[in-house]
Amino acid sequence: MSDSRIAVDAMGGDYAPKEIVAGTVEAARALKGVARLFLVGDEAVIRRELSGLGKIPGLIEIRHASEVVAMNESPAAAIRRKKDSSISRAVELVKGGEADAVFSAGSTGAAVAASQLKLRTLEGVDRSAIACVMPTPVKPFVLLDAGATTDCTPKILAQFAVMGSVYSREIVGRNDPSVGLLSVGTEDSKGNETTKETFKLLEKSELHFVGNVEGHDLFEGKVDVVVCDGFVGNVVLKTSESVAHAIGRWLKEEFTRNPIRMFGAMFLKSAMNSIKKKSDPSMYGGAPLLGVNGICVIGHGVSNAKAVFNGIRVASESVAHRLNHLIVEQIKKLGNCS
Amino acid sequence: MSDSRIAVDAMGGDYAPKEIVAGTVEAARALKGVARLFLVGDEAVIRRELSGLGKIPGLIEIRHASEVVAMNESPAAAIRRKKDSSISRAVELVKGGEADAVFSAGSTGAAVAASQLKLRTLEGVDRSAIACVMPTPVKPFVLLDAGATTDCTPKILAQFAVMGSVYSREIVGRNDPSVGLLSVGTEDSKGNETTKETFKLLEKSELHFVGNVEGHDLFEGKVDVVVCDGFVGNVVLKTSESVAHAIGRWLKEEFTRNPIRMFGAMFLKSAMNSIKKKSDPSMYGGAPLLGVNGICVIGHGVSNAKAVFNGIRVASESVAHRLNHLIVEQIKKLGNCS
Repeated sequence: MSDSRIAVDAMGGDYAPKEIVAGTVEAARALKGVARLFLVGDEAVIRRELSGLGKIPGLIEIRHASEVVAMNESPAAAIRRKKDSSISRAVELVKGGEADAVFSAGSTGAAVAASQLKLRTLEGVDRSAIACVMPTPVKPFVLLDAGATTDCTPKILAQFAVMGSVYSREIVGRNDPSVGLLSVGTEDSKGNETTKETFKLLEKSELHFVGNVEGHDLFEGKVDVVVCDGFVGNVVLKTSESVAHAIGRWLKEEFTRNPIRMFGAMFLKSAMNSIKKKSDPSMYGGAPLLGVNGICVIGHGVSNAKAVFNGIRVASESVAHRLNHLIVEQIKKLGNCS
Repeated sequence: MSDSRIAVDAMGGDYAPKEIVAGTVEAARALKGVARLFLVGDEAVIRRELSGLGKIPGLIEIRHASEVVAMNESPAAAIRRKKDSSISRAVELVKGGEADAVFSAGSTGAAVAASQLKLRTLEGVDRSAIACVMPTPVKPFVLLDAGATTDCTPKILAQFAVMGSVYSREIVGRNDPSVGLLSVGTEDSKGNETTKETFKLLEKSELHFVGNVEGHDLFEGKVDVVVCDGFVGNVVLKTSESVAHAIGRWLKEEFTRNPIRMFGAMFLKSAMNSIKKKSDPSMYGGAPLLGVNGICVIGHGVSNAKAVFNGIRVASESVAHRLNHLIVEQIKKLGNCS
């Protein structure tokens, strides 16, 4: 059956293990189509967390791992050195065939390094990419790569377009997702050397390629998938968060500047909460690392139980939709076109 | 003496020629240190605009140009084809020595192309860069390159760091400006191949180099100068505007959703206006194209008279501070270090 088995890195994330364990138990109780959930990490610690959560569903299983990769460690080195880290062991469950997917809210770099090293890439895929679902006032879009592969050739970027398109259709639910290439102007002559070559590859592909998109277009909800290299994508992701944070700070400063404004702001608390909710990436359940031979979903460091639940849901749906099988098929078609 | 002579592209910008002419007249009346202001464009049209503005200071002079480069034209091609365009003629006044600086709020690409083609780069400078002053809740920073040079070598990026540093000190008024290299992590091992090499060059330079900065840090006001290639910088600039626009839309939607919220929002109008003002890039008077042999300041397409006034002010200050002379000196020092 397509019932999924998911390995959860119980020790990764700012609120680990508490929120991770809570979210996993919630997923075990509420999610359909999940056959097994592994909690990977310090067994004693995990047992303690579980003990406060009532009757634990039988599909939860603990797998002991004695080490943790910290957020400030160099990811690749830590993965090599800490053989018994929770993220390494979780990924190895996928590699060994005991699990179909891994979820971690720990160090993104460590999850990427472990997956790239242990799972390797899918057939025909050269490099992996982190796909982030970004909220906009119109509709969310998939941004990839958000940081897995900083130096990309046109061929690699074209593969990202294929993977993002499959993800948008299968998991975000877009029919015939439109794909844009992030550049500095909409004409095909605009961009750097790499994007200009990528433009030609995408034009020839079977994707619903709409051409270049600019930074201006991103949050207008114009396209379903935005393709760029991992350097640019990471900068876009973090710059967006930085701008939102700066505006939040400005709003707070100004709204509390005098009693009249504070009075007015009282009536807008629900409005502010509503915006916070709509622009909250945690509802999309983390970002998958696409292109590796196994499903890997990476949660935000600040993931709470709800975010963990959604991350497990996305991992489970990716398994059910046979995401990697579809990616391999579509990548083959791309190869035929170029 | 160092009194500056500035050529203004009267026909460039969404509100040209009206706002351009008005801002230029204002500058002629109020700015110290300006010896001459050329209004370059259709003479009859400029005369008509001037006729409604009272007594015109004698330092304003009209120079006729029969053509205009439109916003949607391919910049380089338009500059080659339209020999008598206002931007071409304005830049030629600098080239010919009649003016020290040019200001345009028209097509950025056209201003860049005309300057690069006609003025060439300064001694020792390989490529030019657009320097944007970006507002943050803490203090503004200079972002460069915002779009003039999409493909950059480490050497070119190091030169951008030098030029941005000089600009920050002389025009933004920072003592010993701190310089950050935009990357995907703060450790020196993070980045793409180009930024890793650039890091080494900047470490050896005499600049106040603080290492890599991430997208997260940008609007925290951590550094005075942020260096990146023109592709990344353009994406950062436009993404920031896009995020701000999206949040504005969310706020408007939520604040007008019901009468209670509309009541509360009444008390916050001045707060919203204050934020708009603080985050308004037009107060910084446009972005200089650094590295060309002459001063070129590019205004936002939506420049009003105030923005034009500020752009002319920045151009005039750049001349008074002998910006290009200082850039050439500092670039020489960089050459000695690498």
